[in-house]
Amino acid sequence: MNPDRLSATFAALADPTRRAILARLAQGQASVTELAEPFDMTMPAVTKHLKVLESAGLVTRAREAQWRPCHLNPAPLKDANAWIEEYRKLWEKRLDRLAAYLDRIQSQAKPKEKARATRKKK
Amino acid sequence: MNPDRLSATFAALADPTRRAILARLAQGQASVTELAEPFDMTMPAVTKHLKVLESAGLVTRAREAQWRPCHLNPAPLKDANAWIEEYRKLWEKRLDRLAAYLDRIQSQAKPKEKARATRKKK
Repeated sequence: MNPDRLSATFAALADPTRRAILARLAQGQASVTELAEPFDMTMPAVTKHLKVLESAGLVTRAREAQWRPCHLNPAPLKDANAWIEEYRKLWEKRLDRLAAYLDRIQSQAKPKEKARATRKKK
Repeated sequence: MNPDRLSATFAALADPTRRAILARLAQGQASVTELAEPFDMTMPAVTKHLKVLESAGLVTRAREAQWRPCHLNPAPLKDANAWIEEYRKLWEKRLDRLAAYLDRIQSQAKPKEKARATRKKK
């Protein structure tokens, strides 16, 4: 895996409009005009975002058709996912520790609650 | 999930040095000096990368200790992973289609190979 390709993928994902374009293309191919519609953006602005996505290999454009539809290419996402997955154990361990801590403070709180309830009865 | 937080996470990951810093911190806490060692970089350059990682919430620094060790916080990676996972079906479908295509061309090639082998025997 070329590290610069991975950097290009993450950089392309670091924008909400570009992520929204990818989400739209996950539903099927679309023209630049169709992609521009939901955003309050000029065509050149959308084209600029598309160029970033194309150079990261996340979007390909048909060469033959006159309207040159855009397609999502999910391959770079697979590589980005593989990189992040290396850290899965770390966040799961962190969540396990948090759950154990919550269990502990809850079980410490319970006897106190019982004691309070007993005191109230008296 | 705040979309800008997700953008900050992906932007922080879009650099090989910052990813290497995270990989180092996944092994355990480290001081800025320790982090700078493996890279041919000045301390200010490493500090700059650390600031990007800190503002994305991927790295936290202890306030009490004098050497202020850096820690990895994997929580933003979990959110980035959740975003990418939405596309898993797409790349798996693409790979399945590729495998089916390879199977098809292989099974088309086999009868030809057999025919060639039979011809040779004659």
